[in-house]
Amino acid sequence: MIVAFFRKALVAALLGVLGPASLAQAQSPDPLPSWSESPVKATIIDFVERVTTEGSDDYVAPQDRIATFDNDGTLWLEKPLYTQFVFVIDRVKAMSNKHPDWKTKEPFKSVLDGNTKKLLTYGEKGAVELIAATHSGMTTVEFNDIIANWLKTAKHPRFKRPYTDLTYKPMIELLDYLRANGFMTFIVSGGGVEFMRAYTEQCYGIPPWQVVGSAGQTQFRMWDASPALVKLPQLLFFDDGPGKAEGINHYVGRQPIFAFGNSIGDKEMLEWTANCEGLCFMGLVHHTDAEREYAYGPDSDVGKFPVELLEHAEANGWSVVNMKNDWKVIFSWEKPTP
Amino acid sequence: MIVAFFRKALVAALLGVLGPASLAQAQSPDPLPSWSESPVKATIIDFVERVTTEGSDDYVAPQDRIATFDNDGTLWLEKPLYTQFVFVIDRVKAMSNKHPDWKTKEPFKSVLDGNTKKLLTYGEKGAVELIAATHSGMTTVEFNDIIANWLKTAKHPRFKRPYTDLTYKPMIELLDYLRANGFMTFIVSGGGVEFMRAYTEQCYGIPPWQVVGSAGQTQFRMWDASPALVKLPQLLFFDDGPGKAEGINHYVGRQPIFAFGNSIGDKEMLEWTANCEGLCFMGLVHHTDAEREYAYGPDSDVGKFPVELLEHAEANGWSVVNMKNDWKVIFSWEKPTP
Repeated sequence: MIVAFFRKALVAALLGVLGPASLAQAQSPDPLPSWSESPVKATIIDFVERVTTEGSDDYVAPQDRIATFDNDGTLWLEKPLYTQFVFVIDRVKAMSNKHPDWKTKEPFKSVLDGNTKKLLTYGEKGAVELIAATHSGMTTVEFNDIIANWLKTAKHPRFKRPYTDLTYKPMIELLDYLRANGFMTFIVSGGGVEFMRAYTEQCYGIPPWQVVGSAGQTQFRMWDASPALVKLPQLLFFDDGPGKAEGINHYVGRQPIFAFGNSIGDKEMLEWTANCEGLCFMGLVHHTDAEREYAYGPDSDVGKFPVELLEHAEANGWSVVNMKNDWKVIFSWEKPTP
Repeated sequence: MIVAFFRKALVAALLGVLGPASLAQAQSPDPLPSWSESPVKATIIDFVERVTTEGSDDYVAPQDRIATFDNDGTLWLEKPLYTQFVFVIDRVKAMSNKHPDWKTKEPFKSVLDGNTKKLLTYGEKGAVELIAATHSGMTTVEFNDIIANWLKTAKHPRFKRPYTDLTYKPMIELLDYLRANGFMTFIVSGGGVEFMRAYTEQCYGIPPWQVVGSAGQTQFRMWDASPALVKLPQLLFFDDGPGKAEGINHYVGRQPIFAFGNSIGDKEMLEWTANCEGLCFMGLVHHTDAEREYAYGPDSDVGKFPVELLEHAEANGWSVVNMKNDWKVIFSWEKPTP
């Protein structure tokens, strides 16, 4: 009798404070609160519910719930330049006193002159040259310290915040939601693997061995009387375009059923995911919000999203996030809109 | 009163059945029951207790508890030939009707003649040639099916059992023990990564992305009107000797504090582990039991364990398992000795 009385009183009190609808919501809170009630959000939630419901035709065992995410432009911002490219520019400046020839030698000269427009005309070949010069000749431990120190001090020119603040809140919610439903989450990015590993665990909850990226070769040898891995300028793996599908097989070793990217460099990763046996989800972030972030696509130097990719996504049932409409909040540090 | 009575009765009943010593043992059972009470076992347990005791000088946070294991000769048998080499021999035989030139072309001729002694004289170069010929020209999905079928049917010539039965029980207990104490366990082996991934999850509880091995290149392209990864004969990564230290950095991305190997090819992995900041454990399996398994070492074609390695281990405090004395049981299918 006494127990029954308290139970009734408790239910009445809760209903009084929250109302019946709020009570239902409290029981199963929105897993993606920064996402507007868009078709993309509905598709994601429907997908996760189907593959995790035992007995359903679409059920997938936990060990096969593999989700892969691009990084630049998908999990964090990539404008006006890829963050790692800003790091490379800062490294060239910091190292230039030991390389007097760089003052007259391109693409180093454009970096030292601060001529980003001219620098970008050297394209991928120029980037590779700058990366090789700044990412080699030291041990892996020394290089990791250089990255960690840079991430602590560097700030984004527009948002005046550390780059690690400029991760996308809706995507971090999505990573958490997938993991809470038994998924293993991986990054599969064209970016340098060491650069990403410096912050992926802290920012995304993704440990180093679940980060696939581009990488240079190393050499195991003695360095200051201790065994060390010395970074060489030669490329070991280039993880972009078809390299993303190849990288998933080589590093993850299992077929993904969920993948998210934002540019033409992610097409093969999404095609490889779409080739899975059962239900699968392919998503692209479309940067459409010049006010809160950036609006870009077909003609962008970074994060190129040509019209053909949009058409291919529509024709194949891939989900496209319209950032302006679909995300209530963009950055991790922002307060949600009421 | 009634509750107290039942509690007393329960304790009395348990003591009556088990005796006080058994009750204590039931509360903390031996985590490594297939290991004799040897110095190696004591060192392992002491190490795990130190690094997992919060407040201890040797405490290591869970995300830094990285353990790496060689595979052939460390987690499963490697005699009389590496298992993957037996697979390669069987593949050459199965594919030979489409390659009439192999009848007269070495090292294929020695395989088809069943002349293993001559075959081994072609060394690493011969092995690479056989692997390139048998591990390329098909999709990754097709190749994984070939491996899975072979593992189901092939049997070890001496033990007359599938190779996946020939994993070492003490090492599987060790993997479980480490994981129960918050460690992440990785394989770092010279063997082919696809070959290992076919059974590591089932046999060792190690998922594909925690398996580091040697690998060939792949190419993403259309194959029978679907996107596929086609295996190429070119090498992508060779994970042996110094390659093991390089591989740990590239694939795992974090410094190990625990490593186990069994041959000269594991020396650099153990040296790299020994370079960790705090307490670390380095172990080697020495094959000393001709009766229950094999006894080999300095002069072996596989699993070479030269005297210098033994001396280096002793000089540097690395633990060496004397298989004959230190392991009560060897294979997973054996009953423990009473």
